[in-house]
Amino acid sequence: MNYPQTTDTLLEARWIVPVEPAGAVLRDHAIVIDQGRIRAIMPSAEARAQFAPRERIVLGHHALIPGLINLHTHAAMSLMRGMADDLALMEWLNNHIWPAETGCVDTRFVFDGTRLACAEMLRAGITCFNDMYFFPEAAVEAVLASGMRATIGMIAIDFPTAYASDADDYLAKGLALRDAYNAHPLLSFCFAPHAPFTVSDKVFTRILTYAEQLDCRIHIHLHETDDEIGNSLKAHGVRPIERLLKLGLLGPNLIAVHMIHLTDDEIGLIAQQGCTVAHCPSSNLKLAGGFAPINSFLCAGINVGLGTDGAASNNRLDMFGEMRLAALLAKGQSGRADTLPAWQALQMATLNGARALGLDGLTGSLLAGKAADITAVDFSGLELTPCYDPVSHLVYAAGREHVSHVWVDGKMLLNEGELTTLEEQELLLKAEFWRQQLEAGQRDRRMDDQGNGK
Amino acid sequence: MNYPQTTDTLLEARWIVPVEPAGAVLRDHAIVIDQGRIRAIMPSAEARAQFAPRERIVLGHHALIPGLINLHTHAAMSLMRGMADDLALMEWLNNHIWPAETGCVDTRFVFDGTRLACAEMLRAGITCFNDMYFFPEAAVEAVLASGMRATIGMIAIDFPTAYASDADDYLAKGLALRDAYNAHPLLSFCFAPHAPFTVSDKVFTRILTYAEQLDCRIHIHLHETDDEIGNSLKAHGVRPIERLLKLGLLGPNLIAVHMIHLTDDEIGLIAQQGCTVAHCPSSNLKLAGGFAPINSFLCAGINVGLGTDGAASNNRLDMFGEMRLAALLAKGQSGRADTLPAWQALQMATLNGARALGLDGLTGSLLAGKAADITAVDFSGLELTPCYDPVSHLVYAAGREHVSHVWVDGKMLLNEGELTTLEEQELLLKAEFWRQQLEAGQRDRRMDDQGNGK
Repeated sequence: MNYPQTTDTLLEARWIVPVEPAGAVLRDHAIVIDQGRIRAIMPSAEARAQFAPRERIVLGHHALIPGLINLHTHAAMSLMRGMADDLALMEWLNNHIWPAETGCVDTRFVFDGTRLACAEMLRAGITCFNDMYFFPEAAVEAVLASGMRATIGMIAIDFPTAYASDADDYLAKGLALRDAYNAHPLLSFCFAPHAPFTVSDKVFTRILTYAEQLDCRIHIHLHETDDEIGNSLKAHGVRPIERLLKLGLLGPNLIAVHMIHLTDDEIGLIAQQGCTVAHCPSSNLKLAGGFAPINSFLCAGINVGLGTDGAASNNRLDMFGEMRLAALLAKGQSGRADTLPAWQALQMATLNGARALGLDGLTGSLLAGKAADITAVDFSGLELTPCYDPVSHLVYAAGREHVSHVWVDGKMLLNEGELTTLEEQELLLKAEFWRQQLEAGQRDRRMDDQGNGK
Repeated sequence: MNYPQTTDTLLEARWIVPVEPAGAVLRDHAIVIDQGRIRAIMPSAEARAQFAPRERIVLGHHALIPGLINLHTHAAMSLMRGMADDLALMEWLNNHIWPAETGCVDTRFVFDGTRLACAEMLRAGITCFNDMYFFPEAAVEAVLASGMRATIGMIAIDFPTAYASDADDYLAKGLALRDAYNAHPLLSFCFAPHAPFTVSDKVFTRILTYAEQLDCRIHIHLHETDDEIGNSLKAHGVRPIERLLKLGLLGPNLIAVHMIHLTDDEIGLIAQQGCTVAHCPSSNLKLAGGFAPINSFLCAGINVGLGTDGAASNNRLDMFGEMRLAALLAKGQSGRADTLPAWQALQMATLNGARALGLDGLTGSLLAGKAADITAVDFSGLELTPCYDPVSHLVYAAGREHVSHVWVDGKMLLNEGELTTLEEQELLLKAEFWRQQLEAGQRDRRMDDQGNGK
């Protein structure tokens, strides 16, 4: 006879939705976890016979899904959540966000804000995020404190900030950070040139050279507003996508965020070049950018992931909300209710995000050999009752409020809704401190404006 | 000196957002409740000096808002939540919902399903709903069991069901129910002709006569799909709105649900006639009806409330989700981020719904003299931290998961997230029973179809 094999954890659940293969639902199965990896997925009864786990967890009313991947955020901006709403993008940036950043943002702000975001994301079932913000060294510290997986943006922008004086300085700091942390199993790095209207051709060209040498992704806001396109036509004689094409930036390494206003030719070009789209439906609507042509992207075979954007423009770091909204908008836009079905929305929020980041060998689906990045959703409440189809419920009925447990690399970071690595009370106190700082800064600016007769 | 006056309850909170006046936020105020009514709203310190309450409740991290009003639902359909998704409206109705209803729906189904819906709605801060479904006598029993406020639809539809044999039978049963319960302080009744494509001119005319005699509202699905409009043109030579105009049904008593496809002239007509629109954005997108022109309705001065629709087509009875989605869609459609600001979305979900139902003297805002229909939202969690503006957070950051307490007519129906009138475990068992019944019915129909060579 065969003796049971030792393993770290046996995680049994009512359902497992592995995302690969697409649409599959495994009933009464278990995930065998060892040394942070998924060793096997099999019927619970077989797993119990075959393995002697050090820890056995039975989630009798739950669905296990791959940890959600937030493909676009500015995590530290959680400290600016709701600071300025119901405003157009450029007014929001010029009169509220950028002045606030100038006044307050430093490494302490980014460390506290990113930890707040990590806490919110973990409670919402997100295990990995793609971040773009100043002082990324502080974001790295926050991510390590949380135990999450992240891709950290090496940000570049043409104007000086408290973080860096010019594009050379931004890139030098980003690259030094990457050198220091790129070997960490939970961290990866990408270039994050902010947007076509804030980065020069020269800097794009340098970034492209580095990205090719280092095999790095490039993460950029692209075609978010009509203004951006109009300004590019004035300044460069071409629309931003054509400008990036000429510079050589379009390709499988490009993660293009928002992508609201595109011609059919541009959609064909993005597909042909193999770029990923990071779709942020809540942010696109809230800042009135508009409706990204997601159905056309999907029909063209473009890889589409989902992002929350920062909490200053969403205001929830809630990928359940983004899944649901993406699926609903796609139906409304197409006039066909079978557009973007539930399984596909879940795939966008998991595997497609992992592909975009080059992490699909490691995360984004529940397969033997991948890291144990797992989210458990508790179906016992009356909001998810009755249940005919758990995949439908995950997208259309469930919310982040139903997430009970989260594992990253096999480590439990959320246990029955409680964070295991981050201290909620400390984060609340820090957030209140920064709120007072930001509001004091707003008051000071108003007084300066009055003094200057504005 | 003045002695403190006795009163039932003193409810103190960090913030009160009364909805009237629009945009107001009261800090550290209290609601004085007596005999189910709001007696006064004043600073907490003054209230403590002036009143000797039998019960004092201090919600130090919470915002109190008027109980949310769900202006369109089919509550009992919660038992069909997620039974058939990603399908077009007529396929969904003809091949899934209507056959299931024929097989299963009776008074027990409606009693259990409506209680499940009431439980979900209470946990989501909803205190009043406008219902349209078969066997409304069972919905009445469920509402009374829950302690909620409701407007019950006297449904009429041209085809026979297990509930009634023909339009005369539907109306007779509805009117008898109204006679028996109309005096109940938590109940009101309206006529609920299902839709233009399921109700004949003759029946509309009878309903209009009754509605005028009894001063009743009329609740109808209207202009939900292009098919509905095309079929009306074929059958009646006019679009549904024009048909209802000719029949005399347009007017301040009409609650028109969905209203997606309208010409500018029709919008003007709806405004001129004083009809209410019940906007159900999740349902409209999920069934691919499209995008209702809410900005045009608001510009025309039309009263717009919000509804979830039934859980078979949404699949959440979540007015926080509908508020957020309505505000986001309006910005995306208009291209202006200042469209439908947070305070207005909250007004749509409360006062505008009350106005539509003719209940704005009683509920829909927190004013002295109105019923104590109150929802408390707990702002202590990190998802609502930091907080610069509680009204922004209520719409853009909060979710139903932050609702902690609910009162209807001064009675606490939700206490720290726990239902006080309904038994959650019993509802879960009942829902599971009905799921098995519905799935057995689906299997039987499939076998019949195979037997008939379909």
